[in-house]
Amino acid sequence: MTSSFSSSQQIELLTSTDDDYGGVIVQMDQPTMDSTTFLSILRASISNWKHQGKQGVWIKLPIHLANLVETLIKEGFWYHHAEPKYLMLVHWIADSANTIPANATHRVGVGAFVVNEKREVLVVQEKTGPFRGTGSWKFPTGVADQGEDICVAAVREAKEETGVDTEFVEILAFRQSHMSFFEKSDLFFVCLLRPLSFDIKIQEVEIEAAKWMPFDEYVAQPFMEKYELLRYINDIYLAKVDGHYSGFTPVPTKSNFSNQKNTSYLYLNAGGLKRCNSL
Amino acid sequence: MTSSFSSSQQIELLTSTDDDYGGVIVQMDQPTMDSTTFLSILRASISNWKHQGKQGVWIKLPIHLANLVETLIKEGFWYHHAEPKYLMLVHWIADSANTIPANATHRVGVGAFVVNEKREVLVVQEKTGPFRGTGSWKFPTGVADQGEDICVAAVREAKEETGVDTEFVEILAFRQSHMSFFEKSDLFFVCLLRPLSFDIKIQEVEIEAAKWMPFDEYVAQPFMEKYELLRYINDIYLAKVDGHYSGFTPVPTKSNFSNQKNTSYLYLNAGGLKRCNSL
Repeated sequence: MTSSFSSSQQIELLTSTDDDYGGVIVQMDQPTMDSTTFLSILRASISNWKHQGKQGVWIKLPIHLANLVETLIKEGFWYHHAEPKYLMLVHWIADSANTIPANATHRVGVGAFVVNEKREVLVVQEKTGPFRGTGSWKFPTGVADQGEDICVAAVREAKEETGVDTEFVEILAFRQSHMSFFEKSDLFFVCLLRPLSFDIKIQEVEIEAAKWMPFDEYVAQPFMEKYELLRYINDIYLAKVDGHYSGFTPVPTKSNFSNQKNTSYLYLNAGGLKRCNSL
Repeated sequence: MTSSFSSSQQIELLTSTDDDYGGVIVQMDQPTMDSTTFLSILRASISNWKHQGKQGVWIKLPIHLANLVETLIKEGFWYHHAEPKYLMLVHWIADSANTIPANATHRVGVGAFVVNEKREVLVVQEKTGPFRGTGSWKFPTGVADQGEDICVAAVREAKEETGVDTEFVEILAFRQSHMSFFEKSDLFFVCLLRPLSFDIKIQEVEIEAAKWMPFDEYVAQPFMEKYELLRYINDIYLAKVDGHYSGFTPVPTKSNFSNQKNTSYLYLNAGGLKRCNSL
């Protein structure tokens, strides 16, 4: 509460927490609020934050308060990002240059390339998507969940689609593609996994069939002709078997540029690094 | 227009285009629309799409039509994603299982590790961020723009911050971290670049100073102790100089899982692959 308000009457202000960049974050959690009441509280709050020298104002608005979106836009807020249950709006109330961070631009996909000791590839036929009904056998693929590590997602997808337990070996290659869904981009990581179990139990909703297929039979499928990415992975696997190829493996690391305290995985060519350190 | 409408009167419907997955996309571009009119047109349109067997309905709502958000939510739409100037809402109108694709989860950051023939590293001091005012010299970093390739973003950031022209060599390593901004994640790619010019001209808004710094002096900076990622990059660079380390280089590829026709970069250990192919 600033001095301009305290002398006259108590005006309700939005509850906010400070962020690390001189801004404030408001998490709206009222069950309901009419837009007229909201407008007066919002204006008083912005005036207060301006007095405090705040810069960015973030408002996380749950979907049940969608009636307040129009008011926020009229007061100068714009959209930052959205998830099914909420909308994040932002407004730069300072005179300084706007340093609002960019929105997420990429989805992360994973492919699980699992080969057993008999040189058989773990493959599936999907019930939906571009391969549906084509008779093509492909390795399991999927999308990483929010907050999920690539090395965890690949193991999860193999398990979900085929029932096979695996351990992560390395990222063989990855592809960045743009305009994959609306204007957003996609990073697709093909991961080599080592099988820990062999019995197949398919996920009935998405998967038509799954099996272990001899590598030579897998690469001879006609649809390979259309997918340069898949042919590269075949070549990479052969180079790997011959001991020439090193992909990227995850190394847990602490600390990073964003002052974050959690452990994050750094993916690197561990073989190349080890060879040097051991000299 | 379906038969249920054609017999009585012309009811205006929303203009839509079909997507590739049995759904429709509506790009609202009216200068204004009142919510009562919109509600009747929306309901007639949904009824029409249901008759046609459509599944997902996407509505891209520009920010100037924020007055229609509440109506859409009340009719069963939810938020899918948002950018500063628009909100994308979606509604699954079929009885089948909802197959709406996930939203983008990651931002892509790049680091530009540029070393010249005198083994000097291109470094900057930033005006903002965690290194501000610490006297630490770090390599240029930034965020990839929507639709920008990693290998392009790294070269752009080096040029923008220091004025130095470079060519992309390879991705040395990358880190995936979570909860980097709100609940979103971050993929940070450290790229080795070869300098093509040497004169420094800093970007005044973000950069305090830039220079070429001897590698040994660079690694001896006290802040390195706090950043395991940076120490790994130092070790990787030394392994690289000794000829032991291979990162991932971009190879242009056509075709992919999402039926996309554009060229995408596949990043892989090209040295490891070449060694095998040449046998």
